Amino acid sequence: MKRALLSVLTLGLILTFGGLATAQTADSLPSWNDGKAKQAILEFVAKVTTEGSPDFVPPAKRIATFDNDGTLWPENPMPFQLIFALDELKRRVPSEPKLAADPMAQAALAGDLATLLKGEHFDGLLRVIALTHAGKTTDEFRSTVEAWLASARHPKYGKPYNQVIYQPMLELLGYLRANGFKTFIVSGGGADFMRVWAEKAYGIPPEQVVGSTARTKFELRDSGPVLVKTRDYLFVDDKAGKPVGIHQFIGRRPIAAFGNSDGDHAMLQYTTINNPHRSFGLILHHTDDEREYAYDAKPKSSGKLVNALKEAPQRGWTVVSMKDDWKVVFPFEKREDKTGDPGRRE
Amino acid sequence: MKRALLSVLTLGLILTFGGLATAQTADSLPSWNDGKAKQAILEFVAKVTTEGSPDFVPPAKRIATFDNDGTLWPENPMPFQLIFALDELKRRVPSEPKLAADPMAQAALAGDLATLLKGEHFDGLLRVIALTHAGKTTDEFRSTVEAWLASARHPKYGKPYNQVIYQPMLELLGYLRANGFKTFIVSGGGADFMRVWAEKAYGIPPEQVVGSTARTKFELRDSGPVLVKTRDYLFVDDKAGKPVGIHQFIGRRPIAAFGNSDGDHAMLQYTTINNPHRSFGLILHHTDDEREYAYDAKPKSSGKLVNALKEAPQRGWTVVSMKDDWKVVFPFEKREDKTGDPGRRE
Repeated sequence: MKRALLSVLTLGLILTFGGLATAQTADSLPSWNDGKAKQAILEFVAKVTTEGSPDFVPPAKRIATFDNDGTLWPENPMPFQLIFALDELKRRVPSEPKLAADPMAQAALAGDLATLLKGEHFDGLLRVIALTHAGKTTDEFRSTVEAWLASARHPKYGKPYNQVIYQPMLELLGYLRANGFKTFIVSGGGADFMRVWAEKAYGIPPEQVVGSTARTKFELRDSGPVLVKTRDYLFVDDKAGKPVGIHQFIGRRPIAAFGNSDGDHAMLQYTTINNPHRSFGLILHHTDDEREYAYDAKPKSSGKLVNALKEAPQRGWTVVSMKDDWKVVFPFEKREDKTGDPGRRE
Repeated sequence: MKRALLSVLTLGLILTFGGLATAQTADSLPSWNDGKAKQAILEFVAKVTTEGSPDFVPPAKRIATFDNDGTLWPENPMPFQLIFALDELKRRVPSEPKLAADPMAQAALAGDLATLLKGEHFDGLLRVIALTHAGKTTDEFRSTVEAWLASARHPKYGKPYNQVIYQPMLELLGYLRANGFKTFIVSGGGADFMRVWAEKAYGIPPEQVVGSTARTKFELRDSGPVLVKTRDYLFVDDKAGKPVGIHQFIGRRPIAAFGNSDGDHAMLQYTTINNPHRSFGLILHHTDDEREYAYDAKPKSSGKLVNALKEAPQRGWTVVSMKDDWKVVFPFEKREDKTGDPGRRE
């Protein structure tokens, strides 16, 4: 009984501290509406960063993992890396008959999504991505992505793709880092693709980007050492592959995970079920058909969100409704935002 | 001509600054004798950290990679992870007939090194390691390594293996970190094995340990989520695999690399040849048969150092002679050290 009383008192103290911390840091997330989701984030961070609290987690263990497509930037009208791959295909097919002859390249150019989306990991898509990526050195690939980012524009927003990123998530990344968290991307997207722009866009350095990879091959050429991209040993950092990628690249369990689809389900489970530390799971629910896209309940969408959403109440995962929880979606909206507070960028 | 004059002046300035910085920081490496190797380290660090200098490298790009076996700790009488695997084999064989029947397990128990060392990457050894590691969850594996470290002792020094680490290299790691470098292990050893003790021993967190890996498998058990170690998709982070591992896990080229054998040759090339930044390569030459082991010229040693050593002068790699350049080899020697300065530990 004494023990129970102590627990209640401790809980009271935590809630009090949580409340205080919330009051002090509420302006770290200016693009978030006040509501359950924002409150849950602030309370979690207050708990794990309050020294002496039973929920305190030392900074070295404050690992936070973020999915990218649909969590840090949109995945519509289709995942941006696929748009890049299709643009590459169109650019190269006229001069590369071998590439043009590939059935998946043909399906892609014909817009035959049904063929491309077959298989557990959308095998046709992966093949198109592999076809357009392999054979290049990592430096050549980087230049290709940079050139694409400089010229391509998102069809809905008219902006370069690396500017079509979620302002509230930028604030969240900065807020976590200001509280001693190390922020990682853990995404089904290609690591080499994301590393080109993730540091500038999100403040996440290449060594904290976990993504799908194939093995490279080392060559010492006359011009110097290069790594040539291959299609061998493909690792798909999606679904059950996400905990695998986290272990392989980070080597410890996160205490916070952020996703938006069933592709993030295993990562949320790995992060929050029986974690010896207090942990946090968050799902971004795409509910805003006006400012963004409402698509995640569609069973054939690559960003399908069904099972993880169903499990959320049982696991205590926070569900963010883009429509209700976000004041602003994109950085380029901010000029029209009446609050006048641009929020922190890192 | 004007340009050449400017270059000479710039060089003069750099040397001056280098000299100044050296004077200020010489006590960061108290276990290193004054000599060419120590001087080269201090000068390199001074150059890349001096703002306004043409050699300045911003902190985010100060990536330093260290081999482990033979570079941060010894690899004699044989690599420590192999000693662990053999101890595991001996412990488990009596109760596991399947394990006992494996030809490589039998070769290992019989001490038949010739069989174990066949193949480019010592395939027999790898199989013994895989046999004793696979099937365990990552948590079980961690506990096994911890139990071994608590009980096993190095035959020459009588200390737990995670205390048989090089004092001068600990100082070097701390010195680089104090100068804004991010220090990584890039080793042929297993990532899961090294991550158990590397943070405490070297101050290198799990997410900065790149090593050999096989893929794990995610399972959600009644007890919670686990990752089961398998033997699939083995990646050997050695020789040409080191640049591959660096790219896959870190995603940018190091500006400094530290190794001791031909297994580090490709990493040294990748780091120093045509690097757009000023770069640094260092080879630890095992020349001290008294305090440690002198073995690296032996062609059949797993720590063979022939080709990289031959290339060192051409590439400007710094060669450290353990016998001549190190005042002290191990932390546990320090009490007898007359300088009285314990050096920095991080």
